Amino acid sequence: MAAGSVVKLPFAVVAMVTAALCLASVPAASVRLSLPKSGPSTQPGRFNYKTRYLEQKIDHFGFAEDSIFKQRYLIGDEYWNQDGGPILFYTGNEGDITWFCNNTGFMWDISKELGAMLVFAEHRYYGESLPFGKKSFSNPKYLNYFTSEQALADFAVLVRYLKQTIPGAQNSPVIAIGGSYGGMLAAWFRMKYPNFVVGALAASAPIWLFEDLTPCETFFAIVTNDFSKSGKGCAECIRRSWGAINSLSSKAEGLKFLSSTFHLCSPLQASDVALFKSWLIETWTNLAMVDYPYKANFLQPLPAWPIKVVCNFLKNPSLPAKSLLQNIYQAVNIYYNYTGNAACLNISQTSTSYLDDQGWYYQSCTEMVMPSCTDGVNDMFEPVAWDLKSFSDDCKKDWGLRPRPDWITTVYGGKNISSHSNIIFSNGGLDPWSSGGVTKSISDTLVAILIPEGAHHLDLRSSNERDPYSLRKARSLELKYFKKWIKEAKTESLETYNSPNH
Amino acid sequence: MAAGSVVKLPFAVVAMVTAALCLASVPAASVRLSLPKSGPSTQPGRFNYKTRYLEQKIDHFGFAEDSIFKQRYLIGDEYWNQDGGPILFYTGNEGDITWFCNNTGFMWDISKELGAMLVFAEHRYYGESLPFGKKSFSNPKYLNYFTSEQALADFAVLVRYLKQTIPGAQNSPVIAIGGSYGGMLAAWFRMKYPNFVVGALAASAPIWLFEDLTPCETFFAIVTNDFSKSGKGCAECIRRSWGAINSLSSKAEGLKFLSSTFHLCSPLQASDVALFKSWLIETWTNLAMVDYPYKANFLQPLPAWPIKVVCNFLKNPSLPAKSLLQNIYQAVNIYYNYTGNAACLNISQTSTSYLDDQGWYYQSCTEMVMPSCTDGVNDMFEPVAWDLKSFSDDCKKDWGLRPRPDWITTVYGGKNISSHSNIIFSNGGLDPWSSGGVTKSISDTLVAILIPEGAHHLDLRSSNERDPYSLRKARSLELKYFKKWIKEAKTESLETYNSPNH
Repeated sequence: MAAGSVVKLPFAVVAMVTAALCLASVPAASVRLSLPKSGPSTQPGRFNYKTRYLEQKIDHFGFAEDSIFKQRYLIGDEYWNQDGGPILFYTGNEGDITWFCNNTGFMWDISKELGAMLVFAEHRYYGESLPFGKKSFSNPKYLNYFTSEQALADFAVLVRYLKQTIPGAQNSPVIAIGGSYGGMLAAWFRMKYPNFVVGALAASAPIWLFEDLTPCETFFAIVTNDFSKSGKGCAECIRRSWGAINSLSSKAEGLKFLSSTFHLCSPLQASDVALFKSWLIETWTNLAMVDYPYKANFLQPLPAWPIKVVCNFLKNPSLPAKSLLQNIYQAVNIYYNYTGNAACLNISQTSTSYLDDQGWYYQSCTEMVMPSCTDGVNDMFEPVAWDLKSFSDDCKKDWGLRPRPDWITTVYGGKNISSHSNIIFSNGGLDPWSSGGVTKSISDTLVAILIPEGAHHLDLRSSNERDPYSLRKARSLELKYFKKWIKEAKTESLETYNSPNH
Repeated sequence: MAAGSVVKLPFAVVAMVTAALCLASVPAASVRLSLPKSGPSTQPGRFNYKTRYLEQKIDHFGFAEDSIFKQRYLIGDEYWNQDGGPILFYTGNEGDITWFCNNTGFMWDISKELGAMLVFAEHRYYGESLPFGKKSFSNPKYLNYFTSEQALADFAVLVRYLKQTIPGAQNSPVIAIGGSYGGMLAAWFRMKYPNFVVGALAASAPIWLFEDLTPCETFFAIVTNDFSKSGKGCAECIRRSWGAINSLSSKAEGLKFLSSTFHLCSPLQASDVALFKSWLIETWTNLAMVDYPYKANFLQPLPAWPIKVVCNFLKNPSLPAKSLLQNIYQAVNIYYNYTGNAACLNISQTSTSYLDDQGWYYQSCTEMVMPSCTDGVNDMFEPVAWDLKSFSDDCKKDWGLRPRPDWITTVYGGKNISSHSNIIFSNGGLDPWSSGGVTKSISDTLVAILIPEGAHHLDLRSSNERDPYSLRKARSLELKYFKKWIKEAKTESLETYNSPNH
C-alpha cells in the first residue's frame, strides 16, 4: 500500500463510532461519511406532513455574522388538540429530516392518543438546511457554525417561534424526541433548554461515548456478541476472515479471487484492501444496528432478524480461506442485495456522495470524538488501538482543524448529569451504541429503559405485530412518562396562572 | 443642540440599566460605559490571593478560530481544606477581577469556616483577560467572542482545569458566587453547567430585566423611592431640578451659572446639557445602588446611608430655580467629593477611559438589552419611553451591529426556570436592580432572600458592625444553603463511589 495514502470509507449515516475508528494496517486512515444512497429517503412518505422553513441566525453565539438561513421543519398536526395539546418535537440529526420523519413511526402512532402536534426539525448543515447553500462545505469559515450547540439553539428558537405564532400552542408542553445522535440532542435539549421542553426521549443515545467515559472496545464487543448469539461459529467465521483476506490480497491471484467472489463493481487493487476491510467492518456493524425482528428498510432492505439470516452462511470457521470468504460473500450479499437488484457490490461510494454526506465526518473531527478500538479477543475484528493523534492529524489534513475531544463532556456534563430531570434513555440490548448509553436509571426522573431484543432505536419505529414484548412494554412506559410530564406541565402552568403575582 | 450629535455618557460599571436608557431630548442618544476612575481598584488589596492565568480557547463554540488567550484568575487558599474542601468560585463580571475580589469580603469572611478555596475568575474582555490583547476592541471581528456564553464556557473550562490539576480538588464541590451581572452569570452557570457547580449565590442579579419580563419603569421608581424615604421633599427637589436646568440652560447666563455652581471642570455648552442631565441621573442611580449603612468605598468614597446625607440638602422643592440647583450641587458634591479632594467635577470622563470601559456598552448592544424608561410620575425623572429602534440604531452606528433583545430570555429561560435547582437569589430592597430580580422563591431549591435595608449586593461585602439584622440573617441563611449543598454533593459523590458500577 502506498505510503501516506488515505482511505475514504463510505459510511452509513448512523454509524457514528466507526467514523472515529482508525483501521488496522492503515497508519493514516481517515473516514468519510455517506448517507445511504438507496432506501427510505427516496421512498414516498407514508405520513402526512407539511414542509415549513424558519429563518435562523447563522450564528447564535456571536454578532459579527448576522446573516440568516432557512431551517427546514416538518409539521404533522392532523390529530393536534389546538387547546394546548402537546408538541412532540423530533431533534433532527445527521441527515435529511424527511428520512427521520418517515422512520420515526412511534411519534405518528401515538399522536392521536396524545392529541399531539408533530414537529420534525432539520439539523443545520444537513438536508435542505444549509447555512451557506451549496457553498456550505466549501470553506472552513462556512463550516464554523456547524456545532451541536448551534443546532440546539436552532431548536430553541424554533420552539419559541411555534409557541408564539401557532394559535393554541402557547401553553403546549413540548417533548423532545430523537434517536442516535438525535437522541443525544434530545437529551441535551432538555438539559440546556428546560424552558422549552418538559422532557425528552433519548433513544439509543450514546451520550457517554466520549473521552474515557466508556471503554473504547465495548462497541465492537457488542457487535461481536450479536453475531455470536445468532449462530454457532458465526462470529468466529468473521474473525478468521481477516487473516484469509490478508493472505489472499498479498497476491494478484488472490485480489482477482476476492473481486470476482464478492462481485465487486471495480477490481480490487492492493491499495484498496484496507478500504475493503473497512467496508466489511461497516457491514457487520450496520447489521448489528438494524437487527430488527421484522423485515425492514432502514439502512438497507433486510429480512427479519437479518444477523440470523447472515449467520446461516457462517457456520464453519475451519474452512480453507477461499471457502470461508465465499461464505462471507453470501452473508454480505444479504445486506447489500436482499432485493436481488444489485448487479455488483461497490465498496466505495464516496465518489458520488452528496455534499452533506461529509457532515458527520466534520462533526466527528470537531466535537463528536468517540474513541473506539478493537482487541481481536473480545471482538471479531483485527486489533486496532484508539489513536487520537493520528485521527487528529487526518482532521487537520481534511478540514484544516483539530478536534476538541474534551469539549462535549465539558459542555454537556459527562456522567455528572444527576441534577437534570425528565429524560428517558432507551437502549436496545443488541445495539452497539448502547455501549455509550445510559442503561441504568440515574434518578426517578432520569430513567433508563432497556429493550433486550432491540437494535438501534427500535422503539422509535412504527409498531409491528412482530414487536417483542420488551419493546411493547418500553413504548408503553415511554408513553406513560410523556403523559406524566404533560400533566405536570399543565398543573404548573395553571398554578402560575392562578398565582397572585401573575 | 447640533443635529445628529451623540451623547456619550460616562457610566459606572454596575449601572447596567441606564446604559440602555435613551435620554429625553436626545433623539439619537447613545451611551458609553466607564469604570470608576478612582476608588477600590487602585487601592492595595486587603486580601491575600495569588494571580494565575489559564489558556482558554478564544472561541468555545466554533473551530475556525483556534487561537487561545490568557484568562486571569485569583486564588485564595489560606484556609482551604485540601481533603475535598469546597471551592467558592466568583463568576467575574464587567470589570477588573481584582476589584470584585476586594469588594467581595463575604467570601473571605466565610472561607475559614467552610475550609474553602476562593477563586475569582475574570470575565473575558475585561481587566487583563483580553482575547486579542490591546486590539480586542479595535474591530468587530475581535469582539465577536464577547458574549456571556463564551464567559460561562471559560468558567466551566477553568473549574474543570482546577479540579484536574489541584491535588485534593477533584471532589471539591464548587459553589458559584457573583453580584450584579456576575450574579446573573452565577445563576446561569448553575443552570447551564450543573456538572461543575453544586449551587449558586446570585446576589442582586436582575435576570428578569430583559424583554417585557419586568415593566421598564420599575428600576427608576425604586431609585426614586430611596430618595423619597430618605428625607421629606428630597425626591421632589430632584424632580423639579430638570425643569430648572432646562430653563437656565436655554440662555448663556444660565449655562454660566450652572458651570460655576456645579464647579464643572469645563464650562457647560448648550450641546452638553443632555450629557449633564445624564450625569445627574447616573449620580442619583449610583447613590441608590450604594446606599449602604456604613461608610464605604464601592463606586466612590461615601458616608453611611449616603442618600440620607444627600437629602439633608434637598428639603425644599419650592425654592426658585437657582437656589434649588445650588442645593442639588451640594447633594451631588457628596457623591463626587466626599473626601474633599476634587478640584472640580467632570461630567464626561469618556476621553480618558480605558479600553475595557466600553465593555458593558458592547454587551448591552448585543445580548444585554435591558429596557428601561421613566414616566415622571412614579419617578423623579423626565419621562423617557423605551425606544428599541433608536437604541439599536446607536449600536449599529457605534459597533456595526444590532442587539438581539430576545436572545437572553431564549437561552437562559426567562421566567421559566423552575426545573433548575440550588440557586439563591438575594436582593436588597433599596437596590433598583431588584426590579429585575427573583424576589419570591420559585421552589425549595430556588430560593429568594430579601434584605429590606440592603442596596446593591450588600450581602457580598465584608461583615460590618453596622450591618442590619436582615443582612446578618440573609448571610447566615446563605451559609446554611452552602453547607447543605456541600453536604449533599459529598453524599452523592460517596454513593457514586460505593455503587457497584463505579
